Amino acid sequence: MKKFLNTPEAFVDEMLDGIYRAHPQVTHTAGDLRCYVTANPVPGKVGIVTGGGSGHLPTFLGYVGDGMIDGCAVGGVFQSPSSDQILEVTKHVDQGAGVLYLYGNYTGDIMNFDMAGELAELEDIATATVVGNDDVASSVVGEEHKRRGVAGIFFLYKAAGAAAAQMLPLTEVARITDKARARTRTMGVALSPCIVPEVGRPGFQIGENEMEIGMGIHGEPGISREPLQPADTVVDKMMERIFAETDYKTGDEVAVLINGLGATPLEELYILYRRVAILMEERGVTIRHRWLGEFATSMEMAGASISVLHLDDELEPLIAAPVSTPFFTHVGG
Amino acid sequence: MKKFLNTPEAFVDEMLDGIYRAHPQVTHTAGDLRCYVTANPVPGKVGIVTGGGSGHLPTFLGYVGDGMIDGCAVGGVFQSPSSDQILEVTKHVDQGAGVLYLYGNYTGDIMNFDMAGELAELEDIATATVVGNDDVASSVVGEEHKRRGVAGIFFLYKAAGAAAAQMLPLTEVARITDKARARTRTMGVALSPCIVPEVGRPGFQIGENEMEIGMGIHGEPGISREPLQPADTVVDKMMERIFAETDYKTGDEVAVLINGLGATPLEELYILYRRVAILMEERGVTIRHRWLGEFATSMEMAGASISVLHLDDELEPLIAAPVSTPFFTHVGG
Repeated sequence: MKKFLNTPEAFVDEMLDGIYRAHPQVTHTAGDLRCYVTANPVPGKVGIVTGGGSGHLPTFLGYVGDGMIDGCAVGGVFQSPSSDQILEVTKHVDQGAGVLYLYGNYTGDIMNFDMAGELAELEDIATATVVGNDDVASSVVGEEHKRRGVAGIFFLYKAAGAAAAQMLPLTEVARITDKARARTRTMGVALSPCIVPEVGRPGFQIGENEMEIGMGIHGEPGISREPLQPADTVVDKMMERIFAETDYKTGDEVAVLINGLGATPLEELYILYRRVAILMEERGVTIRHRWLGEFATSMEMAGASISVLHLDDELEPLIAAPVSTPFFTHVGG
Repeated sequence: MKKFLNTPEAFVDEMLDGIYRAHPQVTHTAGDLRCYVTANPVPGKVGIVTGGGSGHLPTFLGYVGDGMIDGCAVGGVFQSPSSDQILEVTKHVDQGAGVLYLYGNYTGDIMNFDMAGELAELEDIATATVVGNDDVASSVVGEEHKRRGVAGIFFLYKAAGAAAAQMLPLTEVARITDKARARTRTMGVALSPCIVPEVGRPGFQIGENEMEIGMGIHGEPGISREPLQPADTVVDKMMERIFAETDYKTGDEVAVLINGLGATPLEELYILYRRVAILMEERGVTIRHRWLGEFATSMEMAGASISVLHLDDELEPLIAAPVSTPFFTHVGG
């Protein structure tokens, strides 16, 4: 196993220790490194709490910071955080206006967030929940509730964070975030597996000249295993699924996220973006915002995902709003 | 070869096309995609031009933008740009105050930048040159002129860009940049090779449980091939070489860059940083600024480098100054 670590057991906590040493903008609560919170809470603002397994940096904790989200319960690699950890983060983050739970659609996370929400209610903290389910590959239309949450949650954090920063009430922050959820679609493609430190070997293999379209960020099976094809063809196949579910009109605007899963060079993400830009142009759709890089990874998996948020007049300025976290900065505009 | 590309021959130009489509803050000149320049030149400011091979994003072109550098001549993957391309970038970037050439210490780059400088002089454009040579592993003390330029050039771009933004004259920008150069040290370690698209296979191998300390960003041989060791031990070995060359006193300040070479997860970079922070603390040295992520890559190589800039009162505010490029944002402070 080719990894920089001391012991697999210490992987997550030493990573967190490194993050706290590097970034005074974030800290932890309840004496637990895995209860990760902003050091600069805004009085009266709706708090936004996420959580999930480690191994996806900058997802999830990387979006805790000014203008985005407020806390993250950090699980082991590819493991859910506990309901107690979520509750501790919730209590710390609550500033009297309630807390939005915003995380990806995975059974363990849902169970623990729901339980934490019930416990929070006993402490008079109102919560609302939006569960990201942007991964088009993980179920057919009509069964969107079965879809996994993947890189597109970035847009949900962005919209939710900007709405909360405007001091909107919890119901409004939740409504807007849910709208961003409903308008976000992601398709991914994997070229190689990844290694969980405590396992020490890949959980599956992808052949030397193969790709798997639709593979999940924990290696969940995709929709087809095929020979690797030219980048433009790969993009066309991915975008076909996204276009099939969205009714774009000339003049519509989108935000696009080209996300590297870990090992894929940034150079290649720009080659993918180029084709996405051409396809959007052909449809008369304007890419108003775009980000490229590593936003939701699977350790050292090679591959990429494309997320598209279909903007409207309400969402666009929220996506444009400035953000500053230790892992992501947007100057605004 | 597991890469997202259409043809190896189109790799660089399609990447550049993607970048121009994504980021209106940059453009190209002389009808050549590879003559990459800022779209927002500042009248009267010293221009800063870099260049080098592709395959290292965000190095080199990623640092073209507000508060940093102004132009980049883009070579093929791991190949130098031509002197003509450097000259075209120089002519576009010059705003009457002359141009600083700032690039890494590689024979082909030196030859072509020197030639471009002579041609620029014929067009009455004054140039000065600083050649980054931060890679401690590539020669012994006393022969620093033989050292390769690697990720530490990030600090040189940062210092040079901030100095130029203060509208200092070329001689001053060059003096400050050269001071940053002399005070920057990098050590790298590679865990896996990378693949140049036009070659299609790795140029070398690293055994399943091996690491190579000091390997260059094009796969140049390092100083030792050893069994992979715990992360803290790896950092201790790397930092020993940096500490041996720097006379740190209690209260001194540094800037630290933990750079991923391509495939190494961000999680692991924070584990490396943790140990660097402990070592600095033991010496009473304050890490005033730190960045972690991918700053100078070798395609999909697994591995990392640690760069340290020994700050002084002149360099610190320049490193702290705000920057906004399509690939790197620093809000200041």
